[in-house]
Amino acid sequence: MKHVLDETVTLLTRTPEVLNALLRGLPESWTMSNEGEGTWSPFEVVAHLIHAERDNWIARARTILDHGESRPFAPFDREGNFEQSRFRSLEELLDEFAQARVESLQQLSAMSLLPPDLEKKGKHPSLGAVTLSELLSTWAAHDLTHMHQISRVMAVQYRQAVGPWSKFLGVMYCTGHSG
Amino acid sequence: MKHVLDETVTLLTRTPEVLNALLRGLPESWTMSNEGEGTWSPFEVVAHLIHAERDNWIARARTILDHGESRPFAPFDREGNFEQSRFRSLEELLDEFAQARVESLQQLSAMSLLPPDLEKKGKHPSLGAVTLSELLSTWAAHDLTHMHQISRVMAVQYRQAVGPWSKFLGVMYCTGHSG
Repeated sequence: MKHVLDETVTLLTRTPEVLNALLRGLPESWTMSNEGEGTWSPFEVVAHLIHAERDNWIARARTILDHGESRPFAPFDREGNFEQSRFRSLEELLDEFAQARVESLQQLSAMSLLPPDLEKKGKHPSLGAVTLSELLSTWAAHDLTHMHQISRVMAVQYRQAVGPWSKFLGVMYCTGHSG
Repeated sequence: MKHVLDETVTLLTRTPEVLNALLRGLPESWTMSNEGEGTWSPFEVVAHLIHAERDNWIARARTILDHGESRPFAPFDREGNFEQSRFRSLEELLDEFAQARVESLQQLSAMSLLPPDLEKKGKHPSLGAVTLSELLSTWAAHDLTHMHQISRVMAVQYRQAVGPWSKFLGVMYCTGHSG
């Protein structure tokens, strides 16, 4: 499936409501549990999504449009929002993510991108040359990889509780496959 | 994390809205695509969830309460609702799933389960003895394994579109881990 900007935006628009439907008001036994040391809880995933929304996607799109490959993207600390989020509620984070997403989609829309813009290239600090089209596709796929992560983190909390059924539940055997 | 009936019900209550927020009105390039021959699209996952809701969870809970281990659960055809769903819209399926979930949670509530009930055992056709607690935990984890699947099936449609970023997106390397 080719990247189509409208379809990417359609998906990006939905994610705050998906996370809201799944997580708001859920017991902390689901939302604050992780998969072990060095892994993230659903709460931390939402903190990360806010940070990416404020400091990553639109900033990198602008870097591509304004500087092309001459200026590498600023590095992005995946856990950069964890410390500031520690004493907030999940509900506050969900609200902030929804607001940040609305704003970043407005900024994207204001760029009035045309097909040739999507082929413009930027420089990723470790991946090298990437196109704006790849960046925007990754924004959507990044939402999906974190939904995939959240559903897994929640499921593994029930690994013992499901007893012998765990062998039929693929999610119980997912290791996250992080690169 | 121990199985706690209230928490399981809290999760089960949310799933229709999660799927609705993610899938309703999304282009068919996301909802009708699968991961290759023999795999399911998000549309087919919803058809499967309806079927499980109508014929699996509550029926098996009743079998445990009424017959214990003396009567094995009826076998369940995971693709049993695919043929009937073929000519329906995803929106109809989402509505039917939401309705079926409301009804099955009403039936669960009417069972007025007490802690000793949760330890009662039934007989799974291939897994052998299982408890009602394990069945109910599996109901919730089954929702999560299918959210995990849907987010993966959608993400892999963008495997080419994200270019070199795929190496940072764990979901692109998930194989589903089916037992």
